[in-house]
Amino acid sequence: MKARVEKVFGHLDPKPEALLLANSVEPHLDGSFFYLFDVPSGLFEGSTAVAYPDGNLDVLSSPLEATSAHLAAKTDRHLTVHVPTSREEGDALLHKLLDSKGSVGLNYQELTHQQFLKFEKMFPSARWVDASTAIKRARVTKDAEELGRLQKAADIGSAVAREIPGMLQEGMTELALATEMNYRMMKHGASGPSFSTIVGFGPNGAEPHYFAAGRKLQSGDSMVCDFGAFYRRYASDITRSFHFGKRDDEMKKVHELVEEAQQAALAVLRPGVPGKDVHNAAAKVIDASPYKGRFMHGLGHSIGLNVHDGWGMNQLVEEPIEEGMAITIEPGIYLAGHGGVRIEDDVVVTKDGYRFLTTAPREYLEVSA
Amino acid sequence: MKARVEKVFGHLDPKPEALLLANSVEPHLDGSFFYLFDVPSGLFEGSTAVAYPDGNLDVLSSPLEATSAHLAAKTDRHLTVHVPTSREEGDALLHKLLDSKGSVGLNYQELTHQQFLKFEKMFPSARWVDASTAIKRARVTKDAEELGRLQKAADIGSAVAREIPGMLQEGMTELALATEMNYRMMKHGASGPSFSTIVGFGPNGAEPHYFAAGRKLQSGDSMVCDFGAFYRRYASDITRSFHFGKRDDEMKKVHELVEEAQQAALAVLRPGVPGKDVHNAAAKVIDASPYKGRFMHGLGHSIGLNVHDGWGMNQLVEEPIEEGMAITIEPGIYLAGHGGVRIEDDVVVTKDGYRFLTTAPREYLEVSA
Repeated sequence: MKARVEKVFGHLDPKPEALLLANSVEPHLDGSFFYLFDVPSGLFEGSTAVAYPDGNLDVLSSPLEATSAHLAAKTDRHLTVHVPTSREEGDALLHKLLDSKGSVGLNYQELTHQQFLKFEKMFPSARWVDASTAIKRARVTKDAEELGRLQKAADIGSAVAREIPGMLQEGMTELALATEMNYRMMKHGASGPSFSTIVGFGPNGAEPHYFAAGRKLQSGDSMVCDFGAFYRRYASDITRSFHFGKRDDEMKKVHELVEEAQQAALAVLRPGVPGKDVHNAAAKVIDASPYKGRFMHGLGHSIGLNVHDGWGMNQLVEEPIEEGMAITIEPGIYLAGHGGVRIEDDVVVTKDGYRFLTTAPREYLEVSA
Repeated sequence: MKARVEKVFGHLDPKPEALLLANSVEPHLDGSFFYLFDVPSGLFEGSTAVAYPDGNLDVLSSPLEATSAHLAAKTDRHLTVHVPTSREEGDALLHKLLDSKGSVGLNYQELTHQQFLKFEKMFPSARWVDASTAIKRARVTKDAEELGRLQKAADIGSAVAREIPGMLQEGMTELALATEMNYRMMKHGASGPSFSTIVGFGPNGAEPHYFAAGRKLQSGDSMVCDFGAFYRRYASDITRSFHFGKRDDEMKKVHELVEEAQQAALAVLRPGVPGKDVHNAAAKVIDASPYKGRFMHGLGHSIGLNVHDGWGMNQLVEEPIEEGMAITIEPGIYLAGHGGVRIEDDVVVTKDGYRFLTTAPREYLEVSA
């Protein structure tokens, strides 16, 4: 896509003469390959893309996705698709495209070291440029097509979040709930979950990256549900925390604090503000409470082609917030042995502030057992 | 896990003094991290592991998975878990563990180039060793624990394959079928699909890596369903081809050929045979038919912690088959504009041959419209 190729080169100074992106074997695929080459279907393992400052793009496609690749090229006159039938043919073509280039950009953040060594050997006189910061800066602000897909992915997540209270049954396992949640996401149009669904009942909610497993839902359990959908390769990421059965005054209080922390972050979120200021606004609320130190992760991250899309927001990030960024805002408090609360929304940064992509209610929902 | 650490070092000659594995951000996680550190839950983004020739393992865990990490260490006296609370603390610990080591192995196949550069800067006097071949050789043959999980993952795939004919309805979309298949996999105990489920109706079956999308099932369609389950981090991968409604004599004939090709490959599959001989046995059957050239991918790949687990089998692979390998055997024939047939089974190589992990029927099933 010409506009995206130009956007990446716009962030490169000095500009390399070409940009070379390479997928290895799944899961080691470069999200930027799919950023520049917008193709609905396929893994494109072992495929490469070469982009140029004038906006043109050559894709060397694996034969396993040749039909989809050719179809994409039909509607994009700046895209040329090649389907080499052997490694030798592919390497010869890469030489033809790159031998005359002095400087070549690579995405160090998503390229395997093995691929790098292969390219170093193939092009001994190339001057390699780390393009990963430029790629990240281009990808972190979204275009209209991307925002449309992110909205749809977020809508799917919001719809399922609204349905969770109706799915809860005493004695069900975390995995059984995750099963229903993933099913509903696909029923609502997701191509699949955007990551391994997190459902933590009771004390398991206190581990931020816990995966759904075998604990059974008991009256008195709080729970953390963190999940997301892929829609046309774009991810959503939403967390809601619920309570089941017997009241737990402490967790209710904790939820209020996390809501307050999220509001505090959103209140300062706008273009130009350093990322750390947004994080710190939330952290300050929690650190002024008896739960100081129980919020031990960054406030959020960019979302896009990957659920953790290259940019993270924590107390060290000086980089300012930009209009068009799609990010999560997800404060949490974790009490080992008891439970956790996290509230996570996807937002787009606007000229003056932000707008929500996720729309599900944020209140603590106490579901009867 | 001591036995796995020792297995990897057993394939390294000369042996480095330590092996350093590093996860970046999802999806750029190193499967080998989870091979050596068997922990049920968590992404462990930004986490590292340092293994030693004596079988010991240090894990520097992200705080987001601290509980799971500590729990795993309780039952493994060769495992030490650290949870640094800052980047500085983590880097200082890595220095303590590695500064005295002259040679350090890295998994070039799954390490990002960015991580490599970070380590190169941190340890300017280290002698880096590419451990990826040794890691691949260790991981490609499975231990009893791995085989148990692979069997369970394959059982889930087989159960769902048996249920597909009962799910088919005229007018349903590919994505609707994929939705039901993924749901059933989780109902049968999967933690999720091991890759984006492939359902190709009619001509879409002719693209090997097509993703399920919007085509509606019509009488006369053949279809390819390629899917798999994750069970305790281990993947299965199964393909079955069906026919719906109005007979299609050509596709039936194509399916017979693919069955014959798979049988031919299985007939020569045993330890000591070069991988290319197994591939060629299947290719020979197809190339002797009117469909010469329509089988344009490798015959199979290893399965394990990744669905494409590091080793692939095609006409170039001289490496011999080994006892204990878990691999797919998946010949196919693809007819552009018409449809495709692929039959894929997961097998374990035994002393004298192989045994199936997948058990679903392999015959062409013609389902009434």
